Amino acid sequence: MKVGIVGATGYGALELIRLLKNHPRVEVTEIVSHSHHGERLSDLYPHLTKVIERPLIEYDLSYLEKAVDILFFATPAGISKSLVPEVLETSLQCIDLSGDFRLLKKDYEEWYGKEAVASDMQENAVFGLAEIYKDKIRQATFISNPGCYSTAALMGLIPIIKTGLGSKKGIIIDAKSGTSGAGRTLSRMTHFSEMNDSLVPYKFGKHQHTPEIEYYLSKEASKEVTVTLATHLVPMTRGLICTMYVPITQPTTTKDIWQLYKDFYTNDPFVRLHPIGSMPQTKQVIGSNYVDIGIHVDERSDQVIIVTAIDNLIKGAAGQAIQNMNLMNDWSIQEGLEFSPIYP
Amino acid sequence: MKVGIVGATGYGALELIRLLKNHPRVEVTEIVSHSHHGERLSDLYPHLTKVIERPLIEYDLSYLEKAVDILFFATPAGISKSLVPEVLETSLQCIDLSGDFRLLKKDYEEWYGKEAVASDMQENAVFGLAEIYKDKIRQATFISNPGCYSTAALMGLIPIIKTGLGSKKGIIIDAKSGTSGAGRTLSRMTHFSEMNDSLVPYKFGKHQHTPEIEYYLSKEASKEVTVTLATHLVPMTRGLICTMYVPITQPTTTKDIWQLYKDFYTNDPFVRLHPIGSMPQTKQVIGSNYVDIGIHVDERSDQVIIVTAIDNLIKGAAGQAIQNMNLMNDWSIQEGLEFSPIYP
Amino acid sequence: MKVGIVGATGYGALELIRLLKNHPRVEVTEIVSHSHHGERLSDLYPHLTKVIERPLIEYDLSYLEKAVDILFFATPAGISKSLVPEVLETSLQCIDLSGDFRLLKKDYEEWYGKEAVASDMQENAVFGLAEIYKDKIRQATFISNPGCYSTAALMGLIPIIKTGLGSKKGIIIDAKSGTSGAGRTLSRMTHFSEMNDSLVPYKFGKHQHTPEIEYYLSKEASKEVTVTLATHLVPMTRGLICTMYVPITQPTTTKDIWQLYKDFYTNDPFVRLHPIGSMPQTKQVIGSNYVDIGIHVDERSDQVIIVTAIDNLIKGAAGQAIQNMNLMNDWSIQEGLEFSPIYP
Amino acid sequence: MKVGIVGATGYGALELIRLLKNHPRVEVTEIVSHSHHGERLSDLYPHLTKVIERPLIEYDLSYLEKAVDILFFATPAGISKSLVPEVLETSLQCIDLSGDFRLLKKDYEEWYGKEAVASDMQENAVFGLAEIYKDKIRQATFISNPGCYSTAALMGLIPIIKTGLGSKKGIIIDAKSGTSGAGRTLSRMTHFSEMNDSLVPYKFGKHQHTPEIEYYLSKEASKEVTVTLATHLVPMTRGLICTMYVPITQPTTTKDIWQLYKDFYTNDPFVRLHPIGSMPQTKQVIGSNYVDIGIHVDERSDQVIIVTAIDNLIKGAAGQAIQNMNLMNDWSIQEGLEFSPIYP
Repeated sequence: MKVGIVGATGYGALELIRLLKNHPRVEVTEIVSHSHHGERLSDLYPHLTKVIERPLIEYDLSYLEKAVDILFFATPAGISKSLVPEVLETSLQCIDLSGDFRLLKKDYEEWYGKEAVASDMQENAVFGLAEIYKDKIRQATFISNPGCYSTAALMGLIPIIKTGLGSKKGIIIDAKSGTSGAGRTLSRMTHFSEMNDSLVPYKFGKHQHTPEIEYYLSKEASKEVTVTLATHLVPMTRGLICTMYVPITQPTTTKDIWQLYKDFYTNDPFVRLHPIGSMPQTKQVIGSNYVDIGIHVDERSDQVIIVTAIDNLIKGAAGQAIQNMNLMNDWSIQEGLEFSPIYP
Repeated sequence: MKVGIVGATGYGALELIRLLKNHPRVEVTEIVSHSHHGERLSDLYPHLTKVIERPLIEYDLSYLEKAVDILFFATPAGISKSLVPEVLETSLQCIDLSGDFRLLKKDYEEWYGKEAVASDMQENAVFGLAEIYKDKIRQATFISNPGCYSTAALMGLIPIIKTGLGSKKGIIIDAKSGTSGAGRTLSRMTHFSEMNDSLVPYKFGKHQHTPEIEYYLSKEASKEVTVTLATHLVPMTRGLICTMYVPITQPTTTKDIWQLYKDFYTNDPFVRLHPIGSMPQTKQVIGSNYVDIGIHVDERSDQVIIVTAIDNLIKGAAGQAIQNMNLMNDWSIQEGLEFSPIYP
Repeated sequence: MKVGIVGATGYGALELIRLLKNHPRVEVTEIVSHSHHGERLSDLYPHLTKVIERPLIEYDLSYLEKAVDILFFATPAGISKSLVPEVLETSLQCIDLSGDFRLLKKDYEEWYGKEAVASDMQENAVFGLAEIYKDKIRQATFISNPGCYSTAALMGLIPIIKTGLGSKKGIIIDAKSGTSGAGRTLSRMTHFSEMNDSLVPYKFGKHQHTPEIEYYLSKEASKEVTVTLATHLVPMTRGLICTMYVPITQPTTTKDIWQLYKDFYTNDPFVRLHPIGSMPQTKQVIGSNYVDIGIHVDERSDQVIIVTAIDNLIKGAAGQAIQNMNLMNDWSIQEGLEFSPIYP
Repeated sequence: MKVGIVGATGYGALELIRLLKNHPRVEVTEIVSHSHHGERLSDLYPHLTKVIERPLIEYDLSYLEKAVDILFFATPAGISKSLVPEVLETSLQCIDLSGDFRLLKKDYEEWYGKEAVASDMQENAVFGLAEIYKDKIRQATFISNPGCYSTAALMGLIPIIKTGLGSKKGIIIDAKSGTSGAGRTLSRMTHFSEMNDSLVPYKFGKHQHTPEIEYYLSKEASKEVTVTLATHLVPMTRGLICTMYVPITQPTTTKDIWQLYKDFYTNDPFVRLHPIGSMPQTKQVIGSNYVDIGIHVDERSDQVIIVTAIDNLIKGAAGQAIQNMNLMNDWSIQEGLEFSPIYP
């Protein structure tokens, strides 16, 4: 099948292109960029010399509708909301990596500071948290791919939230990410001389993944769940860890919670649960679609600590988008994604 | 006055030597190392060529007693507990940077896995959290210098704990430190090819600064306080941030808590409170003795978030030890420590 | 076909395992380690959980002879020289990533400080510089895989050396490598707190790749060529750049030398020549088997500057070893190696 | 004495401010910025909170002439050339950290691509290579401070060039610098996600320090000297190493050249010669004004290799500017600069 990628010059798009190169079932045939159409992607990104030689084209739905079967949007916030509604009137499968369709209208407007799509549009989108919503995704033609922090947080919290063991209030998500999550755009915060060797808390209380996380936790818990999300930039390129603290409503042990997670994810090939006493490190997942999880119950303070580690550009973006494409087309969820992490 | 440093080859000792070089009131005249005596420090550390030319000597209290006025111990855990008791019988002022005298006997044995000093020995030690225990330190002849995570955590939590606003349970300390906190000893975890570009949670539930933090928070609150401390290694050399979450017992605002901290630290020259909406970054304190604090009340979830940032080798070790020396000798607390952070 | 890897716990071996996982023609079925036999590779390297589950076995040639078709040695210096002679008596194809068979006996003893193999043994080895010695490699059953610096240097220098344009004396190779080239072994030089943010010249005049480079340059030039190789460690994990300076014997232009390299490598899919005015950066080749080359003639000083960039673990080790395996078996030289660089 | 700094918002200016804070003879009383006048420096640079509280002022020579005694220009290229001529008509001492007055008119125009000052203006400037031109600097009222690469290269090459031992042609300077040398300005090259973990050759054949280096080498040799300068960005913030290759005209030994350098710099407190067999690492000079030098004669290829390491912002800019100020005022050359390197 043929794939097109809109917004082909961002880091998420680069990963889609790189990962799909080895996918046995699809071929990326169209790469679309409004700001760079006519240029070759390898001119912008010399590392792609001999890898991708085709030119970037302008967005033209009537052409894409005939040229490809699957269309990925890897555009910045605010773009796909204008373009996707028309795409949904075609027979194209559509996967959107931006946040434009993840939230209810009022939340989007509050957190993104932009006007949102009409509510009914948003309701067409299936939230692409692959391991959790496999069945819905299989039926879908339009996926809203989760944010990177959301993926790590939800996969770490949903199992315990669903049991009722975890309190609905007081959940802390202390998130740490490499700089690629901030994207291509130049900024003082990501200027090498100022980011190197520094740990930088940012967007406290304002990160737009907060409503996304709460919405789906609340759905899974069938109760309203509130979280505190604090994000930090780490002087590394890739990798994302969420260290999450869940107050428990009754005493439990590391062994019991560990078993809960083992059972919950027993059929999910990309989820790896660390042995008790061991915690994930981001380097162990880089370049792969794995989600590594570590569990520790702090019996002294009645907190369950869950740590999830992902590659923010892969499981946090492009890899999960490909899992969703696989599910939508009834292929194995792992198709084209069976990469070993790259180490050291 | 003359200063001697025992255990002169560790990173904490290097910082003491470097900082004291410019202290107008003292001179480092003796540097002691059991494992490297006879060698020159600049042979181990070529960066000290022309800076320090004297040789390392063997530990000999009868000599040191006459040669210096102030003795710092920058030795690994387990050493000062054997040596300090005799030092206390002399007229030397003594400042211990290790953890050997910070805890009650039973806690030390539980958390450090070594036999502790006799309880009465530990009671002689004054805990050297400079801004908080100024008065006691002024009267002391023997200081137990706090651990790096403890300093950052306690300075961030004590103000709110003392008000009663903060809950005594459910306090989370998510700590992130550069690798110099792990010291000189080679280990797989700090092997460059494996630490670079990786975020590494470690010692979850086991970090020996936990009882230290709880003991002093409980003292300040006049109630038992429990914390959850989770530590992470960050791919940077220096810098330490604690992002701390305190559930509040009654609603409050960022403005109110900010004012509380402003008033609490109003006379402390090394404490810098970030404006509301801004958070500390480790790079902004590196090379200085500053403690930067940021406050954010997450009204959605009734959590106060306090972020403290320090240079783990300075305010987290050597700089605070020098503050304590200044207090013990009735000098200005800032004497010899008025360094600008080094930036970029 | 079945592949066995001896010395499966080093970084070069990890890369062989990772890259061969996706090779359509082979399967890694035996992983051998003397020091860790009986353990699972994923216990040593948690990133391999679910990727490689088999245990490490002890070296046993009579077993391996029947179990696999191709045997890679990724052992430290001094091991394969004892083991390979017997392997050559079997029908196994053998590729050695160490330096044990790269040099003449006297050079090995001088530069490696160990006793070398008998000369006739070394003469059996074909030097596995894939693009240059394709024909010999196709006929070989035993390959000595080049060192990482040697690969980068030889691929950058051989084209100009063969023309006679380049002087035989005065060739400078200023090499910069990430730390993974130094391997797994802990050392002060690669202790994170001391390597981070530092540029470290090392082994000046003593690097054992020097005789390797000179031997093959001299062969290609049919004259004795001497080089000066200076190596530096860079605070990054992967990547290797050689900036090479060749005094020219007659005036020339960047355009002419560029064309020379374009023609020389015109049929080599892994060689990418940068446009005039542009130079390679290591990040553009990481994770791939590409060799990026940049050319600049400094007419002011009659020097040709050639810059080559590779991933030291891939084109500098495992990737080239796989190219050689492909050639030995008459497969396409690119088989199983068509990876895009991983970016950012 | 009172000091003013023009262009107070760049990294070089930050270092001047930080270093002069501890200078016993001067006080920085005016900080000037055209683009940020009216703002406080600590608003742009929060690390300066409590360190520098004064506001940035607009450039006004009639005011500065009365307010300060010494004026530093830390402005980008092209600014001081317009402003300095008028300054020279006052009694102010003037030290310019930019390149505007370092070169002959024709060289400046060729290499900087801007119009240069009138030749007679340039001739008023004394080149501030402190150890080499001490005597001229003592007599001067206007110093043109050398570029960072130039300082490292000239201090490493002048001793051997003056002997006649070194060839006048074929000198290679392979330079590696941390990113702070590229300054505050945002660029793709210094965007963290793209600079991290990458070695980046840049400006080959075009770096504007080339004519500066050649001009002074030729002066010292009393013959025309040509060099090849190749510059590389390293993923670190500070530090600069030049690995330099000088073909020798007659055989010599490491011991002899080492002695030559020892004698040449015997009275220079900031120059540290590494023992034979040891090479400088940038981390050993960071935060200090030291110039570390290593010598190795490669007898196999008749090349003398000289390695110099400096902190590019200190000895490569601000520190050397302060040495020059000390000389101009007959103070000890080390006044206010006796900092230990900061390690680790």
